[in-house]
Amino acid sequence: MSRPRALIVVTGSELVRGERTDLNGPFLAREALRLGLEPARIAIVGDSADELEEALRAGLAAEACFVSGGLGPTHDDRTVEMVAKALGVGVHVDPALESQIQTVSRAAAERLKRDYADFAPGVTKQATIPDGAFSLGLAGTAPGLVIGHGDGQVAVVLPGPPSELQRLWPRALESEAFAALLARARPPKRRVLRLFGVSESAVARALAEAGGDGDGVEVTICARDFEIHVDLVIEPDAERRADELEAAFVPPLEQWLYSRDEEPIEAHVLDLCRARGWTLGTAESCTGGLVAARLTSVPGSSDVFLGAVVAYADEVKQSELGVPPELLAEYGAVSPEVAEAMAKGARTRLGVDVAVSVTGIAGPGGGTEEKPVGLVYLHAEGPNGGIGREFSFPGDRASIRARSAVGALHLVRRLVING
Amino acid sequence: MSRPRALIVVTGSELVRGERTDLNGPFLAREALRLGLEPARIAIVGDSADELEEALRAGLAAEACFVSGGLGPTHDDRTVEMVAKALGVGVHVDPALESQIQTVSRAAAERLKRDYADFAPGVTKQATIPDGAFSLGLAGTAPGLVIGHGDGQVAVVLPGPPSELQRLWPRALESEAFAALLARARPPKRRVLRLFGVSESAVARALAEAGGDGDGVEVTICARDFEIHVDLVIEPDAERRADELEAAFVPPLEQWLYSRDEEPIEAHVLDLCRARGWTLGTAESCTGGLVAARLTSVPGSSDVFLGAVVAYADEVKQSELGVPPELLAEYGAVSPEVAEAMAKGARTRLGVDVAVSVTGIAGPGGGTEEKPVGLVYLHAEGPNGGIGREFSFPGDRASIRARSAVGALHLVRRLVING
Repeated sequence: MSRPRALIVVTGSELVRGERTDLNGPFLAREALRLGLEPARIAIVGDSADELEEALRAGLAAEACFVSGGLGPTHDDRTVEMVAKALGVGVHVDPALESQIQTVSRAAAERLKRDYADFAPGVTKQATIPDGAFSLGLAGTAPGLVIGHGDGQVAVVLPGPPSELQRLWPRALESEAFAALLARARPPKRRVLRLFGVSESAVARALAEAGGDGDGVEVTICARDFEIHVDLVIEPDAERRADELEAAFVPPLEQWLYSRDEEPIEAHVLDLCRARGWTLGTAESCTGGLVAARLTSVPGSSDVFLGAVVAYADEVKQSELGVPPELLAEYGAVSPEVAEAMAKGARTRLGVDVAVSVTGIAGPGGGTEEKPVGLVYLHAEGPNGGIGREFSFPGDRASIRARSAVGALHLVRRLVING
Repeated sequence: MSRPRALIVVTGSELVRGERTDLNGPFLAREALRLGLEPARIAIVGDSADELEEALRAGLAAEACFVSGGLGPTHDDRTVEMVAKALGVGVHVDPALESQIQTVSRAAAERLKRDYADFAPGVTKQATIPDGAFSLGLAGTAPGLVIGHGDGQVAVVLPGPPSELQRLWPRALESEAFAALLARARPPKRRVLRLFGVSESAVARALAEAGGDGDGVEVTICARDFEIHVDLVIEPDAERRADELEAAFVPPLEQWLYSRDEEPIEAHVLDLCRARGWTLGTAESCTGGLVAARLTSVPGSSDVFLGAVVAYADEVKQSELGVPPELLAEYGAVSPEVAEAMAKGARTRLGVDVAVSVTGIAGPGGGTEEKPVGLVYLHAEGPNGGIGREFSFPGDRASIRARSAVGALHLVRRLVING
């Protein structure tokens, strides 16, 4: 028995022009998969009426069609009009929705110290929905809609900004029409393995040597954020097969396996510190605050993470981290010695139990014969000592900085586990 | 006269499932735009034969169709077979291509310590191309192909890995069939306006009052990264029309217009400081280093940006930024008084000319009646005084933090311009 198909239509001229990367298609596709639907196509179109209409007609033919974007107040936001046209229904102004949008827009007008009159026409436009549509209420000023049609088919229409789309999504799942469709779907089980420090091909080889996937267990290996993420999608009847496969291919990878859940490494590190009752801080040069920014992206991080010193200039390394000028003179700012001094300085200055430091050459400039672009030193220092690492990372400035940040987080993990 | 349309078909099951974000669609779309083609649709499909065939048939109907992925050695790499089927032509093994792929595969077999026999069938499969196709040679083990068909139409078929696709792309541009199509294209001019502190609706209204776009000038208004980005795509013969439109709709928006190029605000701020000979630092609480991370993302930022103190805990605000405990006790960490003290402290401690501070409640926890989630105070302090701002930002933790960071960067801009 095949799964209900989900077709995704993403609209936005900046997306179809490649000026911005679409995040909604992948999110909706992952959700479809999780819910037991078959994500079959993601179509990204601009605000050309013809393109949008063609994509919507194709999308609305499937059991489930998820549409993102084109709900804004401007003249080229055409999604509602086009969905109604494709379904052959009319549109009307939803009074409840209109007053909700009014309230938000008045607040926005005040916040931006703008005349509300600027917003009024957009408000009415955004409160106009297809006949028979169910309003999910607002995220931002744009509404979300669920429309049941045809023979148990469902269209879910959501705003383009990813945070707004993701806020309204759970409400869509609860809507009567969508819930009825999902009752017919067969959600697969999912298992995740997160590894760091091993190559994608090594993991692929381990899987192949274990007999590979198939027989109701589909394995995806993908390098993401400089980790290797292995996802097992398991048909309702294939649990045992999945256990056997894992038992065969995980053991040789054990030393790189750091997690069996979706929790990102920064949250994982905070949990480990919390469990030890240790506080955490960072001392960053080439990452310029990326490590601290990732740690503080986690809600409730403030009980573990106390602060950071971004010491981009050598003077700041001396004044704020107490790195001895002789050390900088003798070994240079990008050296294991300075990395260690930065971490130790951060422990004292920030009064934290564990500090991790990053110093390196992110490029494109600043590289030399003996210290090329991509050379990065990390050091984690804790109550019971420290560990250092040297890396030569490939890629451009952004990628070297990101790799350094991920490396620093994993180094803290290692220190807290072993220290 | 309208532009030749370019439809993009991206294949890859991990892409249609959202397990990996597609980079090829956006790359090919930007290239199409630059070359004077109209990027009209990006379709992402998996390896289901039906989906792929439908997407290819639709794509190949356009003047230009760019296809990525599905050129691998395995049975579910169906792109070549499906393209040939959709074009109604046969396939054949290209001997030159076969020997190229053989060489690469023998090397891979050795590296992976596997029998070449495992690779042989895949080699022949990958060397099989549609009749009439022009081979671009190899990147990795996958070939690139250009196929002229119909009435001057072109299909470009490239490997899925972005680096391989981008390596073969320039060769595709030089192919006879593609060059002939591009000769008929008319690259547009592009102008950009970057605004901050004004709403999307207000900009849309200003555009409407100026007569709106059209007549060879297409205007896209889009809220991105909490700024408003206005892009004008201008037909070769519509320069004057663009000037007139700008003259009419820009003046009322002048006070929010901060840039006429693509340079992000962090680079813009660094340039402004550099021009004044001023150094820059940050003092961050709720943004946790985001402002510093954005500034240091710019190559060469080190001559202006010296460092940052991320003072997440109040103790760090006192010890590293010299914020008086009485101030924290009397007004609380989230207050204009503490924001000002943080910025002034950072100026002294980091030895910078300009410092900007951020303190606020990013949530989801920590909000109170009088200090709700989203309340953020910013303060920029320079050699000639300072300015503060209070915001109540909507959205989730990530969005409040990002808005705060953007707000801080724009506050520095204002200070440096007026100070």
